[in-house]
Formats: sequence, structure tokens, C-alpha cells
Amino acid sequence: MPVPILKQGSILIATVQAALSDSDTEKLREDLMERVSRFRAQGIVVDVTAIDVMDSFAARSLRTIAHMTRLRGAETVIVGLSPEVAFAMVQLGLTFDDMNTALDLEEGLALLNREGRLGKSTIGRDGGV
Amino acid sequence: MPVPILKQGSILIATVQAALSDSDTEKLREDLMERVSRFRAQGIVVDVTAIDVMDSFAARSLRTIAHMTRLRGAETVIVGLSPEVAFAMVQLGLTFDDMNTALDLEEGLALLNREGRLGKSTIGRDGGV
Repeated sequence: MPVPILKQGSILIATVQAALSDSDTEKLREDLMERVSRFRAQGIVVDVTAIDVMDSFAARSLRTIAHMTRLRGAETVIVGLSPEVAFAMVQLGLTFDDMNTALDLEEGLALLNREGRLGKSTIGRDGGV
Repeated sequence: MPVPILKQGSILIATVQAALSDSDTEKLREDLMERVSRFRAQGIVVDVTAIDVMDSFAARSLRTIAHMTRLRGAETVIVGLSPEVAFAMVQLGLTFDDMNTALDLEEGLALLNREGRLGKSTIGRDGGV
């Protein structure tokens, strides 16, 4: 199932709806890269709230997406890791040390705003700065 | 083939035209350092749009250039990494974590402007601030 990607101002929001197959992950990566160019996106939020299993391939793929988009000038935040998934990831040694993570979509947008990479068209937690 | 370097206000723009040989890379580094001094440049944009292969030597050289110029007071932004090059770099572990990257020349100039290091002579995405 492909991952829908919304554009909101200079941010792309990818909402993962179910466990990612390998081909879904590649498609997501290609789609995000293409849209970063087309929309000149400055930030990407990948919402994984719906995921209840994060294997090492999916985790590595998310990391690859985050690093690739950063090389192209867009910061990525992973949001919505559930406590169970977070626990499993830590047990597996997948700590996402080099990535941005946030509690949920709202916090993810606020994080991108705080980093100051985004214009005024985005929703900010502190009142739309 | 040497890399042409343009001066625009307090920014130097180096446009890499083809894959960098080792000697080209050294020449670029020397040229940039010399011009940072001569023109008192505050920012440098290295445009690698034309590059379709980035090996680890070229990546390390770009990082060296960025760190050297920062020590001399000029911020460097790498722009124009293609999705393919970005993917290959991430696979090789070359994530440029400690460097500024942007989508293209325009975004690179905007990034330098946002960092507040530059005067008003530069092109800004948000209207030349």
C-alpha cells in the first residue's frame, strides 16, 4: 500500500498507514525525493503512528530517507513511534541517534519550526510563528 | 578542468562542471581559500548539480573545504546533490551531518541569508532579507 504524502506549506507529511513492505519503502523514498525537488520542501514529517512493528529494514530505510533528504536540503522528523515500537527498537539497538524524532505530528511540526528552516506558512506549536 | 568561482556580494559561488579529479579538488580548495581572504567572503556555495558520481575522496575534500572556510569565517553550503548521488552517499555512510546542504543554488543562498551571516546584496528566497 503506497504511503500518501500531503504538502502543507514547505513541509511534506507522509502518513504511513500500515506496516511497510520493502517495495512500499522504496516507493516512499522515491516519492519523497521527487516531491522535495518539485515543491522545494524544507521539512518532512514521517508519521508512523499506525505502525506496530518496526523491523531493522524499515528502520534503516527511514534513516536512509532522513539522510538523503538532508543532503537535498530538507530536514526529516519521524513522529508517532508507539511505546511498544520504541521499546522493541531499543532492544534491537535501533536508537535513531542521528535523526529527529517527536511525539506526534504537532510536535514534529513544532520541531521543524524551531529549527528555523521553514517559512511562515507552517503551523507552529507556539502560535504559528 | 578547474572549477569557476563567481563572486556575488559577499558570497563565492563555485560551480563544479564535471567529476572532480584529485588535482581539481586541491585547486578548488586553494582557490576558495585564497578568495575568501581576498574578497572577505562570508559565505560559499559549492554547486555540484553536474556531478553524477561522488566518491569518498571528493566527499572528504568537500568536507575539508567546508571546515577550512568555516575556520576562516565563511560558511559553506553544498547544493545540487542529485537523488542518485544522495542515495549512493548514504549507502557509503557519507552523510555530511556536519555540513550545510540545500536543494539548489537559490535555496543555498537563502540558507546563508537565514543564518544571518550575509549583507543585503544577496538573493534571498524570502525577498532578499
